[in-house]
Amino acid sequence: MIATLHILGTSSAVPTAKRWPTAQVIDFGGELMLIDCGEGCQMQLRRQKISIGRLRYIFISHAHGDHFFGLIGLLSTLSVLKVDQPLDIFAPAAVIDVMKYQLHRLGYNLRLELTWHELKEGYSGVLLETKRSVVEAFPLYHSVPVHGFSFREKITAKNIRPEAIESYNLEISEIVIAKKGQDVERPDGSILKNAWLTLPEHRPLCYAYCTDTTKVPRHPAIEHAHVLYHEATFLEKDRAFADRTQHSTSADAARSALENKVSHLLIGHFSGRYHRADGLI
Amino acid sequence: MIATLHILGTSSAVPTAKRWPTAQVIDFGGELMLIDCGEGCQMQLRRQKISIGRLRYIFISHAHGDHFFGLIGLLSTLSVLKVDQPLDIFAPAAVIDVMKYQLHRLGYNLRLELTWHELKEGYSGVLLETKRSVVEAFPLYHSVPVHGFSFREKITAKNIRPEAIESYNLEISEIVIAKKGQDVERPDGSILKNAWLTLPEHRPLCYAYCTDTTKVPRHPAIEHAHVLYHEATFLEKDRAFADRTQHSTSADAARSALENKVSHLLIGHFSGRYHRADGLI
Repeated sequence: MIATLHILGTSSAVPTAKRWPTAQVIDFGGELMLIDCGEGCQMQLRRQKISIGRLRYIFISHAHGDHFFGLIGLLSTLSVLKVDQPLDIFAPAAVIDVMKYQLHRLGYNLRLELTWHELKEGYSGVLLETKRSVVEAFPLYHSVPVHGFSFREKITAKNIRPEAIESYNLEISEIVIAKKGQDVERPDGSILKNAWLTLPEHRPLCYAYCTDTTKVPRHPAIEHAHVLYHEATFLEKDRAFADRTQHSTSADAARSALENKVSHLLIGHFSGRYHRADGLI
Repeated sequence: MIATLHILGTSSAVPTAKRWPTAQVIDFGGELMLIDCGEGCQMQLRRQKISIGRLRYIFISHAHGDHFFGLIGLLSTLSVLKVDQPLDIFAPAAVIDVMKYQLHRLGYNLRLELTWHELKEGYSGVLLETKRSVVEAFPLYHSVPVHGFSFREKITAKNIRPEAIESYNLEISEIVIAKKGQDVERPDGSILKNAWLTLPEHRPLCYAYCTDTTKVPRHPAIEHAHVLYHEATFLEKDRAFADRTQHSTSADAARSALENKVSHLLIGHFSGRYHRADGLI
């Protein structure tokens, strides 16, 4: 499977002239999921040529405006454009309340089938299973309830070794059994071991997303991720600001990557005090 | 007096990759007024190097999102930055309700003294008098209640002819009388005509703002404006769209400029269907 990550914003609470508030799109084998939706998200989607009509799921980490003030504009545009495909939004109660109030008070009549899923404080577990992925939520540590998310490839069937089909002259029914991970019993009573017929399972593709948090999270949903996105609002030398505002430093983000044994670390949510992000690396 | 207009957005309901939703700042002799506040307004203010802390008055024309979805982000940033100067916002009830609900539900604790002024449907008259300007509202014609605004220089005193002070050896008390527009009686009983002492009154600087509207407005507050901003969502050849969505064409905007005898016309609120604005002129 191929996954593509689009970064739409890297700013913290106050956007700068160059950095937009937090929003990301992960294209997980063709399934488009939006993670957070800061102000201006719909403009960034257009600039990056991502069709908003293709968004199927939206995950909002917490009820701070820099993570969801773009949501009402996005829904408004979906309404104007008469998009009618289903949309599932996972968000904390405060975000859902604010969105529902606005949609009602402003008289929006959305054509699309919109389903709200409340992210309850402290929830840890599976949020969603699609054809290709499993999305999990886990709690982080901030001034309001906040969740991290992990997006993991769902491996539903083993891959057949191309050469095995010819070598053993496999029937379709035998391939189906092997893909399920089972040994195949032949008509003559002999057994073909599953390991002879299938490739070893690969490590499922995994993207983990952690913002905002003051404590480095440890969670099975993050462990061994291919890429971890972790907020790094401040430099380590500005730890006092990080502690006061319940955010992480870039050193915290690095520690999180090491402790969770991820392959790659991506940082963002930079404070407006840093004009260049170089110093944070 | 010098007035400077900053255009922050020229898009209609759906922003494009290059055009932002409606927002303008008029700097009226140092008094900064924001007119409409579409999504991303605070980023545009930063890009144009306009300090949001200097905004003193905000006017929202109507309760369509492309004219006010940036307001919550702006207030949020004023809160984060701990700005504490007074702010007066003039807006229709639906906008005020939506903003108050969000500020309350999200637990904002604004330091600034925020005063909401409800723009009642159909209201026509003075909204605000400051040291330097008079702001008037007048009704426009759209699918929801909408107001246009005019910003007019307040002429409080006549200007003395520089050469008159020396020629007539004017006392301070005589200058004060002349600035009020009165003739000056000298100690010897002679009369100095006001016209000898003061410059002719100039035409007060006036900026008028009309969006969104399906009918060309005629109003004394617009008449003889130096600049009229008028929406021109569609080309005349697309009048059917304009009629259906209750918007103006560029020909309507031109007619409005002629009928209201303004000096200059500025158009905006362009439909996303036009990649270039050239054709609208």
